[in-house]
Parts: sequence; C-alpha cells; structure tokens
Amino acid sequence: MHVLEQKHLYSGRIIGVHVDKILLPGGQQAIREVVTHPGGAVALAMLTDGKVLFVRQPRYPLGHDLLELPAGKLDAGEHPSKSVLRELEEETGYRAGKIRPLCSFYTSPGFCNELLHLFLAEDLIPTRQNLEHDEQISVELYSLPEAMQMVRDGRIQDAKTIIGLFWGEILLTA
Amino acid sequence: MHVLEQKHLYSGRIIGVHVDKILLPGGQQAIREVVTHPGGAVALAMLTDGKVLFVRQPRYPLGHDLLELPAGKLDAGEHPSKSVLRELEEETGYRAGKIRPLCSFYTSPGFCNELLHLFLAEDLIPTRQNLEHDEQISVELYSLPEAMQMVRDGRIQDAKTIIGLFWGEILLTA
Repeated sequence: MHVLEQKHLYSGRIIGVHVDKILLPGGQQAIREVVTHPGGAVALAMLTDGKVLFVRQPRYPLGHDLLELPAGKLDAGEHPSKSVLRELEEETGYRAGKIRPLCSFYTSPGFCNELLHLFLAEDLIPTRQNLEHDEQISVELYSLPEAMQMVRDGRIQDAKTIIGLFWGEILLTA
Repeated sequence: MHVLEQKHLYSGRIIGVHVDKILLPGGQQAIREVVTHPGGAVALAMLTDGKVLFVRQPRYPLGHDLLELPAGKLDAGEHPSKSVLRELEEETGYRAGKIRPLCSFYTSPGFCNELLHLFLAEDLIPTRQNLEHDEQISVELYSLPEAMQMVRDGRIQDAKTIIGLFWGEILLTA
C-alpha cells in the first residue's frame, strides 16, 4: 500500500491525527483517517477475597460516567508491565506483588492503532491513591459473578473491562 | 463540566476531531481531546455446522491484516439491527434470517465516543459479497473452540471480536 499524500492534522497530549491518500493494490485511490495512540495497559486486579478492583470516572467524550478496570496509557518507551503497575497504584491505591500478561488487543483498528495490554494483577497491598490533577476516580469492588451480571445487563459497557472479566472467568474455571 | 472553548479540527468520512478546554467541578481547567464516531454494529454469525464467519482485512492504521468479526459503522439515522444485517451481507455474502442483540460497548472511552452493538446472527443464507471499492476482505470460517484458541495464543487481537467470541461461549454453555 503506497502513501500518496499525508496530512498531519493534530499532535496532542494523548492522540495524533493524520489523513492519508493512499494507492490500493488494485490501483485505486482511497482516503484513510488515522488516530495514533501510544497504547495502554489494563489491570484485572483480584483481591484475596475474590473481589475485583474497578474505577468509576466521568468520560468526557461520552458525557457520562463509566465503570472500568484500572488502565492507563503507556508513557514514552515504557514497558506495559511497568505501566500497569503504575496506573493500578495511582488509580486505586493498591500495589500488585505479582502480574501476568493475559492478552493484547486493538480497540478500534478501523481508524486507530491503540493496542491495550491486559494483565492479571495479584498479591495486592493497599498504599495510597495518587490521581493526576484532572482525574476524578472512585474505586469500587465487585466479585466476578457480580461483575459478569453487570456485563449481561449493560451496566458495564467498556470493551477492555468486558474482555478482562471474561478472562477472569476463564482463569477461575480453568 | 463546563466547556470553556471548543476547537474543531476535523470532520471526515468516518471520524471527527475536536479539542476542548473544560472547567472541572473542582474549578481547575483541563484539555480533552475527542474523536467522534457514528458507532457501529458487529455480527457473531454462526452457521448451522457451528462455524463462525470471520473477515480478514488490511487495517491501515496498524500496517497489517487483522482477523475480525464482520462489522461496520452505522449510517446516519440507521438502527444498529439494520446496519448489522447490511454489513454482514456486504462483507461475507451471507444474509441472516434471525438476529439477537447481545451487548453494546465503548471501544475507547478515554478519547472516543464510538459505541459498538454486538448481535448474534443465525439462519444464514448464502447470497453475494458486495464490497465497497476500497475494501479488500476475505472470509474465513472457524469453529468457536478454534477461534477461542486463537484468542488465547494471540492470533485474534481485535477487541470486538474477542468480546463476540466470549459471548458465543456463554451462549453455547448456557
């Protein structure tokens, strides 16, 4: 696939945007709108009593709150295993003694290169929540069966969170 | 949350982009980068022999192919149940006699309002693939156990596809 023309529209704090005119293998031209994203890491963090750590936060693009697994974007050059420990502790006030990669997935590959890395986080020790100045996050705890019920009835509507919970089900029934 | 300033950067074929300066409840200012998307519909389409319909296509933002469930964006004012039937038939050449909504989820709520609607599609009748001029899509068939193995070993890396397959597992074991 050959790029005929690339128009850079934006380079921001989290995303970049460019629009490319490309030549398809068949010789036809096409336009591709691309959002670039550094990728992120997600924690399925399970306490010893079986509860999973969730964060509830206002999501500006949606105009409402969302219940999600703790997650955050990768800092430049940062390995996802480091990001997930950092974001989990900052957002929830729990430090994980043990993490294990579960899977990686693209959130919206039609227009965006965002790749999320999901980890199981265990051996959790309470420390202190440490939010960025523009974050408003509250921590909530649910058992896996409670959370799966919330997926089924639509109270959980976040893709990475649904994937993390399904993985939790697989791990517990393995 | 009060919007102090909104800068429209782009309005394209699939996405729009704006960057807002907002006033948080605590009185602090913050910047929010927002990608707007019309939303989409996804089909978990199951043939009577238990095989699931997949599409493989080059994903320009990633620079490589991806194996996904058939999906597409909603046309203006279009109900997701209509989109899913249309996209399934266009991309795979199968018309569904019966569909059932399974769940809806946000793909990347930190910066984008894209909401995807997942449907189970059954009673499939072969018709004819009908691609847009800039689509290069090949159809592949896998059983649910084969596909779940591809999620586990990383050959399937698309969020909506992973969610659809997990739902298939739930439906089959219910």
